[in-house]
Amino acid sequence: MIISSEEIIAAGSRIRDVIRETPVDYSTQLSSESGSRVYLKLEHIQHTGSFKLRGAANKILSLDRSDLDRGVLAASTGNHGLGVCYAARQAGAEATIYLPSNTSESKIRMMRDLGGNIILCDGDCLTAELTARAAAEEAGCTFISPYNDLDVIAGQGTIGLELTRQITQIDAAFISVGGGGLIAGVATWLKSINPAIRIVGCWPENSRVMYESLRAGGIIEFPEEPTISESTAGGVEPDSVTFPLCRDLIDDFALVSEAEIFEAMRIVASIERWIIEGSAGVAVAGFIKTSHLYRDLNVVILLCGRNIPFEKLPG
Amino acid sequence: MIISSEEIIAAGSRIRDVIRETPVDYSTQLSSESGSRVYLKLEHIQHTGSFKLRGAANKILSLDRSDLDRGVLAASTGNHGLGVCYAARQAGAEATIYLPSNTSESKIRMMRDLGGNIILCDGDCLTAELTARAAAEEAGCTFISPYNDLDVIAGQGTIGLELTRQITQIDAAFISVGGGGLIAGVATWLKSINPAIRIVGCWPENSRVMYESLRAGGIIEFPEEPTISESTAGGVEPDSVTFPLCRDLIDDFALVSEAEIFEAMRIVASIERWIIEGSAGVAVAGFIKTSHLYRDLNVVILLCGRNIPFEKLPG
Repeated sequence: MIISSEEIIAAGSRIRDVIRETPVDYSTQLSSESGSRVYLKLEHIQHTGSFKLRGAANKILSLDRSDLDRGVLAASTGNHGLGVCYAARQAGAEATIYLPSNTSESKIRMMRDLGGNIILCDGDCLTAELTARAAAEEAGCTFISPYNDLDVIAGQGTIGLELTRQITQIDAAFISVGGGGLIAGVATWLKSINPAIRIVGCWPENSRVMYESLRAGGIIEFPEEPTISESTAGGVEPDSVTFPLCRDLIDDFALVSEAEIFEAMRIVASIERWIIEGSAGVAVAGFIKTSHLYRDLNVVILLCGRNIPFEKLPG
Repeated sequence: MIISSEEIIAAGSRIRDVIRETPVDYSTQLSSESGSRVYLKLEHIQHTGSFKLRGAANKILSLDRSDLDRGVLAASTGNHGLGVCYAARQAGAEATIYLPSNTSESKIRMMRDLGGNIILCDGDCLTAELTARAAAEEAGCTFISPYNDLDVIAGQGTIGLELTRQITQIDAAFISVGGGGLIAGVATWLKSINPAIRIVGCWPENSRVMYESLRAGGIIEFPEEPTISESTAGGVEPDSVTFPLCRDLIDDFALVSEAEIFEAMRIVASIERWIIEGSAGVAVAGFIKTSHLYRDLNVVILLCGRNIPFEKLPG
């Protein structure tokens, strides 16, 4: 393994005062309808509304004081940006987030509310990222990748650490995949406890770069269609450390349509009374679609975030 | 005081393994818009989706083994029924819930999923309650009132106990009022820590029996209109122990319209990404309507539940 379980344990200690340990709920209805015992990991109630805080916090709290004093940089219009702002403030560091100039006012406001400096760049997300990396290089300060970083991945892995404390027997875990940091971290931990736990990667059909890369045996580019699962969308960096981890750790694959994601979000809102974002809906939809393969097993579905604009909620 | 803070401390110990200690979130947006520092008590993430579990659990866990073996009875189509079923199962007791025969299938199913026996009665909620009380009397087993019971009130008071651990300085607390058990318990604790904390009772204009009773100096009947805040609706028992507690503990009053409750629910869904039920919306709306009176203060709003049918969510 590229990451050891000791590094995830260390991450758990490091970020303990910054993150919220999130509870697990047994879902009576999803269980009775599927014939599995279904546990929901309520990571969507994390501070900032997303698991991304864990990885950002572990990275930032691994820096020494002089690094913190120079500040940290990131490029993200979404959950990673919020996590970096929140964790940096807790660590007494300044966070600067580079964003495309067309980023919505509400997202900019959320990051400013968390103390982030915002720099708007003409161009798209890639332009913002390249500008941020160049600025970090020039100023000698730390650029924080959303997934291509072992400290970030170890931070996400602390979800696994909580899960094995919270649930006696886990047979399968459904986890959404974008860049692959979340599933890489959580699966590293779960497999270290019990290699027989099946790790089920879940993707929107419309946006599945890592899935196609795994099929191709190396990171490739793959065309994307729009998806409600905005947090998992986007390409994967050619050298990403998440590729070998996903290749070695993911056992099963579930691809879901936009309609299936919406229906999963509607079901969770209706029976569990949670607002979840599209990326969390992907994991729920992945389970619903393939649940016949996991009958009589103890299944965890990771609800990874709740940040969805109100007008996009399924009605 | 009718209830001592020692009884609330004892309740906290008694129910610790049954309930979820619920976190507090600082609301950046509600704070910046109001000029107060606004904390949300996330009691809506409680097991069963409502604070009612606390009171039911404290009552049930106060019973001795022979009482538990005879089972417990309640009459409630809503959160109290769910709380009784959940707590009874944890205590190894049988719960029987009496319901009007027109109760929706989904509510019956939720209680059955929690192990409750359901008995349907021809007639309305009052008929169901009288039938349940008579059955309890006859069988010599315990009827659990939703609010007119000191053990139930002490159980709800454990929310206050958590709040004073979680927030250094509280100046005012916004709490919805139906039968008055929630506000009586929480206010008893908060005033015992600091009598200067202002307790703000919040009512739907359409359903405000306790408010009118407090004005009248005794429990009266008062006509009701339909309200989205179903959990707080209904009359107050003529002898309720909550009346003197509400009279002595509530400092300020906020009455809100149905439109204001819906708007509060929409705001919480939109900026905090939580589904909350109408009764929780009442407390948020009460704050928004009167926030000019609490500027520069540390304010807690109690989000007391999330059980709202999906089709009633504000769109």
